[in-house]
Amino acid sequence: MNKHALSDTYRAYIDCLNRQDWPALSQLVDENVHYNGLRVGLSGYRAMLERDFRSIPDLHFVIDRLITDPPHIAARLCFDCTPVGELFGLQVNGRRVVFTENVFYEFKHARICNVWSVIDKAAVQAQII
Amino acid sequence: MNKHALSDTYRAYIDCLNRQDWPALSQLVDENVHYNGLRVGLSGYRAMLERDFRSIPDLHFVIDRLITDPPHIAARLCFDCTPVGELFGLQVNGRRVVFTENVFYEFKHARICNVWSVIDKAAVQAQII
Repeated sequence: MNKHALSDTYRAYIDCLNRQDWPALSQLVDENVHYNGLRVGLSGYRAMLERDFRSIPDLHFVIDRLITDPPHIAARLCFDCTPVGELFGLQVNGRRVVFTENVFYEFKHARICNVWSVIDKAAVQAQII
Repeated sequence: MNKHALSDTYRAYIDCLNRQDWPALSQLVDENVHYNGLRVGLSGYRAMLERDFRSIPDLHFVIDRLITDPPHIAARLCFDCTPVGELFGLQVNGRRVVFTENVFYEFKHARICNVWSVIDKAAVQAQII
């Protein structure tokens, strides 16, 4: 998969998340997907995303920066949202928080098979003190 | 700068940090460098790194994953170290901690001019409880 096709696939993945189009997720995420070194599988990955949207009803993924080097993508994602209760073990309770995630993906057969993510939880913590 | 040359430049930068070769830093980092959106400049950037090595005498940068898409690089860095006192506002006090940093760089004229970093501080917090 060339660089432009891989970037397009990644943007389709982000659109899929923002639409919460879970049936389409299997076209973009491998059945055997790993997250930060642990096998979560497609069903575990979908469950994690569904949980995120329950915690953050106005969750919206915005790509701030995209670096493509097939079969890898790195993205800096920005979030500006109001989690309803607890987020990352922090009592956010409807306050607005702004934070980033720097995340790496490996693709296999045009599907995400590995994700290595670091979310700036410390930024959220600093905003709710 | 092509992909291989940019990757080599980045590896030279990581070697420079691990050698604590601060005079060589000006060959690899722009005078006007920005860190997470703030202008810190070369002297501020060097001061930040020197502070990191004072907090973590056995600090060693290991590249776990490198994604190159000129003029950008994304790296997943791994740390396995024993900070002497406080780190990220946490009382580590000589305990061993293992954590990662997902970091993006923009290069200009073969020097780093922008850095967007997320360090997994929550992982450090979880290890010292």
